[in-house]
Amino acid sequence: MAITVVGSVAFDSIETPAGRRERCLGGAATYFSLAASFFTDVRVIAVVGQDFGPQQQAVFDQHKIDTRGIERAAGKSFFWEGSYLENLNEAKTHNTELNVFGSFEPKIPESYRDSEFLFLANIDPVLQRRVREAMPDVKLVAGDTMNYWIKDHRPALLEVLRGLDILLINDTETKMLADNRNLVKAARAVLEMGPRMLVVKQGEYGATAFFGHANDGIGAKTFRAPALPLEEVVDPTGAGDSFAGGFFGYLASEKELTAGAFRRAMFYGSVMGSFAVEQFGTDRLETLTRTEIDARFEQFRELTHLD
Amino acid sequence: MAITVVGSVAFDSIETPAGRRERCLGGAATYFSLAASFFTDVRVIAVVGQDFGPQQQAVFDQHKIDTRGIERAAGKSFFWEGSYLENLNEAKTHNTELNVFGSFEPKIPESYRDSEFLFLANIDPVLQRRVREAMPDVKLVAGDTMNYWIKDHRPALLEVLRGLDILLINDTETKMLADNRNLVKAARAVLEMGPRMLVVKQGEYGATAFFGHANDGIGAKTFRAPALPLEEVVDPTGAGDSFAGGFFGYLASEKELTAGAFRRAMFYGSVMGSFAVEQFGTDRLETLTRTEIDARFEQFRELTHLD
Repeated sequence: MAITVVGSVAFDSIETPAGRRERCLGGAATYFSLAASFFTDVRVIAVVGQDFGPQQQAVFDQHKIDTRGIERAAGKSFFWEGSYLENLNEAKTHNTELNVFGSFEPKIPESYRDSEFLFLANIDPVLQRRVREAMPDVKLVAGDTMNYWIKDHRPALLEVLRGLDILLINDTETKMLADNRNLVKAARAVLEMGPRMLVVKQGEYGATAFFGHANDGIGAKTFRAPALPLEEVVDPTGAGDSFAGGFFGYLASEKELTAGAFRRAMFYGSVMGSFAVEQFGTDRLETLTRTEIDARFEQFRELTHLD
Repeated sequence: MAITVVGSVAFDSIETPAGRRERCLGGAATYFSLAASFFTDVRVIAVVGQDFGPQQQAVFDQHKIDTRGIERAAGKSFFWEGSYLENLNEAKTHNTELNVFGSFEPKIPESYRDSEFLFLANIDPVLQRRVREAMPDVKLVAGDTMNYWIKDHRPALLEVLRGLDILLINDTETKMLADNRNLVKAARAVLEMGPRMLVVKQGEYGATAFFGHANDGIGAKTFRAPALPLEEVVDPTGAGDSFAGGFFGYLASEKELTAGAFRRAMFYGSVMGSFAVEQFGTDRLETLTRTEIDARFEQFRELTHLD
C-alpha cells in the first residue's frame, strides 16, 4: 500500500569525526522516502528551491519515489549545517536557513489521495494537522516531532497527536512531552494524548515500542528492538528518519497489521537506521539492496533471540 | 556446580527518590550470592565486623549460601553511604568506610576448593589475583572491577584480566579500560586483554555480550539482552552485582556451556537485575521465588522476540 509523506527535502552540510560534507541531499522526508522505498510505493509532499536539480531528482527517481508533490519554488531549498564532533548522539546546529521551506504550504496531488498510509515527518504541527485533515480516509497515520514544537507549539502539537495512530520520537522528546523523567510513565502519558502506539527511538540503544490499549488489535506488549553495535558511525544524520521509513514502509507492505508485523517493523526500522549512519548523507541508502536489508534483519534476530 | 565468590559484604545507607534506608545489608558479594543462589550452590569469601549479626547471617542461611569463608574480624563492616537523587543511573557517594575490609586477606576454606566456578567481585585486583591463583582448577572464572582500579591500579588489573574467562563491567568502564569511546572497538580491545567474553552492563538499556574468538566453543556472536522497562526503580544499588549473580549462577547450573546457555544467562542476569531494583537493598531478592524468576524470563522473551 502506498505511503504519502510530508516533510522536509533539504541540503545539509555535516561534520563528524569521519570528515565533512558540503550540501548533501538531506531532510526528513528524503531519508524517510528512501528507507521506505525498499518496501512499498512512496509519495512525497515537500517544497524545494531552484538549487534542487537533476542530480537530486535522480535519487528519488532511482527509487521510484513519486515526487509530483514536491513543489519547486523560487529561492533556495531548506539548508542545515551541523556537526557531531563531541557526541555522535547529538547534533550541534551551526546554521539553519528555512528558505522556501519557511512559507511551505503543503499541496496534495490528486494522485496521492488514495494513499492508505500517511507519515507526518517533523514539521510545524499546524501543517501536519492540515495534511492529516485533507486525507481523512488513510488507514494508518504516523508522525514525528521535535523538542522545538513540544516546548513552544504545544497546543497545535496536541491537536496533531489526537489524530495519530503512531508517534515516533526519541527518549528525550518523550520525557519532555510527558514532563516525566521515567520513560515508562512518560510513554503511558503520551499514549493518553492520542496515539495507539509510541515508538521511542533511543539512538545507539535501539528503540522501544509502547502500546496503548490491549484491545485495539495492535496488542499491548512492549517491544524492544536493539541497535546494531557499530564499530563506526560515519554520519548519524537521518538515522531516526530512516528508522521511521523502514518501520512504516514495512508496515505498509504487510497484508495484515498483526502484533508480529509491528515487531518486525521495529526490526526493519533499526535495520534502516543502522545502514543510514554507515556513510555520509543518503549515500548508503542510495546504494542499498533488499538482499542486504534482509541479511541485516537476520543479524538483528541473532543479536537478540535466544534460539 | 558450586560457585565461590570473593567480594564485599557490607552495610549501605541509601537515599533515592523513593526514600531513605539506613544500614541495609549490602556489598557486591551479598547481591551476587543472593541472585546466584536461585540457580546453584554459592560459597562466599569475605570479611565482616562485629556489627554483622544473626539478622544478616539469616539472609545468607535462608538462601543456603555457604558462609564458612566469611571471616569475622574485630571492628566494623565495610560501610557505604550514597544517593541517587538526581540520576538513578549513577550513585553519588557520600561516605565510604572500609573498616575491616581495609585489611581483607581472603582465606579460602578447604571445603570451597572443589568449586568449579569462581567469581571475583569488585575488590583490589591484587586480592582478585591471589584468589584466582589459589583456585587453579576452576572450570570458569568471571570477574568485575570499577573505574578506581582501571585508573589507578592498571598493571595489577591487567594481570587479573589475563586469568579471566568472562569480564562483567559497565559501558563507561569498558570505554575507560580500552581508552576508546566506541563501544564495539573498546570491547574488542578489552577482549585482547584476556577474557574470552565481555559482558557490558548498560543499566536501563540492558547488557551486551561480546565474544573473543570464533573457535573457543562459546561462539562469536554478539548478543543483546534488554533491561525491563520499569515504571519505578526504588533503589538501583546492587543491580549490576545481581545481574552478575543471575548470569553466572545460571551458567553454573547448566550441564554444557553452549552458545544458547550464554544467551539465556544474559537474560537471567537482566531478570535478577530487574528484581533487585524493585525494593531497597536486598529486600526484593530475599523474598523472590524461582517461579517469579522464570515468569519474568518469559517476559524478557516477549519483550525482544519476533515470534
